[in-house]
Amino acid sequence: MKPVVDSERLSAELDTLAGFSDVPAPAVTRVVFSAVDLAARRWFKGLCAEAGLDTREDAVGNTYARWHGADPDLPAVATGSHFDAIPHSGRYDGTVGVLGGLEAIRALRRAGHRPRRSVELILFTSEEPTRFGIGCLGSRLMSGSLAPESAASLEDRDGKTLEEVRTEAGFLGPLAGVALGRDRYHAFVELHIEQGPLLEREEIPLGIVTAIAAPASLRIEIEGEGGHAGAVLMPDRRDAFLAACEIALAVEAAARGTGSIDTVGTVGVCDVFPGVVNGVPSRVRIDVDVRDIELARRDGVLAAIEGACRSIGAARRVRVASRTINRDAPATCSPLVTQALSEAAASAGLPYRTMVSRAYHDSSFMAEIAPTGMLFIPCRAGVSHRPDEFASAAGIALGVEVLAGALQRLSA
Amino acid sequence: MKPVVDSERLSAELDTLAGFSDVPAPAVTRVVFSAVDLAARRWFKGLCAEAGLDTREDAVGNTYARWHGADPDLPAVATGSHFDAIPHSGRYDGTVGVLGGLEAIRALRRAGHRPRRSVELILFTSEEPTRFGIGCLGSRLMSGSLAPESAASLEDRDGKTLEEVRTEAGFLGPLAGVALGRDRYHAFVELHIEQGPLLEREEIPLGIVTAIAAPASLRIEIEGEGGHAGAVLMPDRRDAFLAACEIALAVEAAARGTGSIDTVGTVGVCDVFPGVVNGVPSRVRIDVDVRDIELARRDGVLAAIEGACRSIGAARRVRVASRTINRDAPATCSPLVTQALSEAAASAGLPYRTMVSRAYHDSSFMAEIAPTGMLFIPCRAGVSHRPDEFASAAGIALGVEVLAGALQRLSA
Repeated sequence: MKPVVDSERLSAELDTLAGFSDVPAPAVTRVVFSAVDLAARRWFKGLCAEAGLDTREDAVGNTYARWHGADPDLPAVATGSHFDAIPHSGRYDGTVGVLGGLEAIRALRRAGHRPRRSVELILFTSEEPTRFGIGCLGSRLMSGSLAPESAASLEDRDGKTLEEVRTEAGFLGPLAGVALGRDRYHAFVELHIEQGPLLEREEIPLGIVTAIAAPASLRIEIEGEGGHAGAVLMPDRRDAFLAACEIALAVEAAARGTGSIDTVGTVGVCDVFPGVVNGVPSRVRIDVDVRDIELARRDGVLAAIEGACRSIGAARRVRVASRTINRDAPATCSPLVTQALSEAAASAGLPYRTMVSRAYHDSSFMAEIAPTGMLFIPCRAGVSHRPDEFASAAGIALGVEVLAGALQRLSA
Repeated sequence: MKPVVDSERLSAELDTLAGFSDVPAPAVTRVVFSAVDLAARRWFKGLCAEAGLDTREDAVGNTYARWHGADPDLPAVATGSHFDAIPHSGRYDGTVGVLGGLEAIRALRRAGHRPRRSVELILFTSEEPTRFGIGCLGSRLMSGSLAPESAASLEDRDGKTLEEVRTEAGFLGPLAGVALGRDRYHAFVELHIEQGPLLEREEIPLGIVTAIAAPASLRIEIEGEGGHAGAVLMPDRRDAFLAACEIALAVEAAARGTGSIDTVGTVGVCDVFPGVVNGVPSRVRIDVDVRDIELARRDGVLAAIEGACRSIGAARRVRVASRTINRDAPATCSPLVTQALSEAAASAGLPYRTMVSRAYHDSSFMAEIAPTGMLFIPCRAGVSHRPDEFASAAGIALGVEVLAGALQRLSA
């Protein structure tokens, strides 16, 4: 029997999840291990139990909900995503892959599918870098890409370590236990909104991802000299903020300078100290994000930024220290998964295109331990990380239908 | 009898006042109507009472401590300053004029001076713009330069109005009652650290101020379009932060472009929204401070900045809205007061120079309702608004001695 998606129920669940937020709708703020995140996790585990899944959590809060297969010793087939949300963002990024994954499993059960391999739904912890400055915390630990001791000492803006925060949130046991072996999964597939404009522009309902761009982020700290804004003469100044401004413009110039539309560079964070109208800024921190689907080209942009930091620092007589927060390799999707997805799309009579993902996903790290693929659905105007992020219920349902078809094939 | 300054006691009182702070020494943070500010005010009123002064507070917390003269109906002679301190600043800005003013009065009493006119010590509320975005709140209201209803609706970063905050702090009664008539004071004189390097460089212990620079500040709000840092292509971006960077650099260029060392321009505040490493900034607010001793030249800089806002906004397809927070006229000091100061310096056998003040003071507004003057003492390396702000006890004592001499002459 063909799995049939209950779009109405899924929409209602996405609505409910959007309500777990620290800001009023339509904006969503759900930072990892905040009260609303923990409440959303409790609600989500209830849904999994109701769907007949066995749930467990690891030491960093990654949540696994398993539908036991007829041959439970075989490597499982997994799907999932994250539902933490950056401040003042929207309601579809990540959540569609979590609740859509759950609905895909429920639809398969309703259709009478009896999987040979177990099917697992994964809720990943902190795909967003909001709190600890590094994205994909859960999947990095899961794949062994991040050492447990490095993870434990990551700090949030209040100076609290991940170790403290996860313990307070009730996630205990050694972080070393989070890593999974390469034999754990037969395949992993993540459903996600595109976060780009291509599917909508071309009016294609599905994108099958072949590669995920390689992101890198830098934290740049600039130390100049403060003083009274009225009293320090212009030629005597060592203004940390003006140096930061020139560096931010250099990031833009370096990203545009590759001549490729696939290169992007962003300064999204700028903290100015002391941050008063009548004080010359003495210290500034900026966070830089650079991405490309070609590793060498991306690393060329990073080198250009480092060069700009040196020359701007010298010219303005400020100290510029740059630290790599992460610098990951691009991930290639597995033909096993892309083929299951394309067969499922064909069987549903739906057109698709292949594409690369410029955004960053837990799939980037899952690809290190399992054959991995991603399925994209359109989002309005390519917008995400904003309150007006939008994917239609009908578009989501098509994605879930094809995801279910792929899980069916992969677990059979 | 010649007034003799108790330098040891004054140093100890400056130490005690520095302890009323929200950050550890040597830094000082004492924002208006914070718990530490209110505690410092209670302590200060105790000192005034102990010195035999009659204390009253007005509706915005300006505090008047009066030594009654033989002819109390004559306009009084006043001195004073502020002791609010911007975040992570130092211990001498303002405080030297408050506690030094108190010590000058005590020294005159000890010396047996019997003033004909009453002598009044004023503690001004919120000279620093930290909390409500506008400096000299107390003296603006006192001089009628700021309408009570405009003051009442000023908001802090938490959206609380001055009206709410001052009421919670226990300052009641109508704000309209704060304004003073032009017949209230015969003279006002403020002792202050120079906040510039000239006295130290020239090894002169005293500066008699002839004019105070005209400050202006703008709040510039930039609205672009946010989105995912990986997914929004560079040519499609309307990045509010990059526009802010270009505007900040244009402020610097405009200030340097006058060719005068007396022009300064600063961007000290930059708030980025949403402020996450993987999000394109959609909204940015910057605060701009421009000062000059020549009004026309300063207004030329403001016009250049407005022009830059327009062209940068158009080029980057962002909306730029600029609002004037304050735009004050330069103040000229009164010969009555500068002469009393120079006579007192001569009588103490101390050299002085005349100079202009590039920084902003309550004297700027007192000059509108009373003959006003300022006395500067050196501070190390011209540094202020920083934890390493420093004035020597000996240097402060010389300033207090000459202040006392001037108050003696003016009140006789």
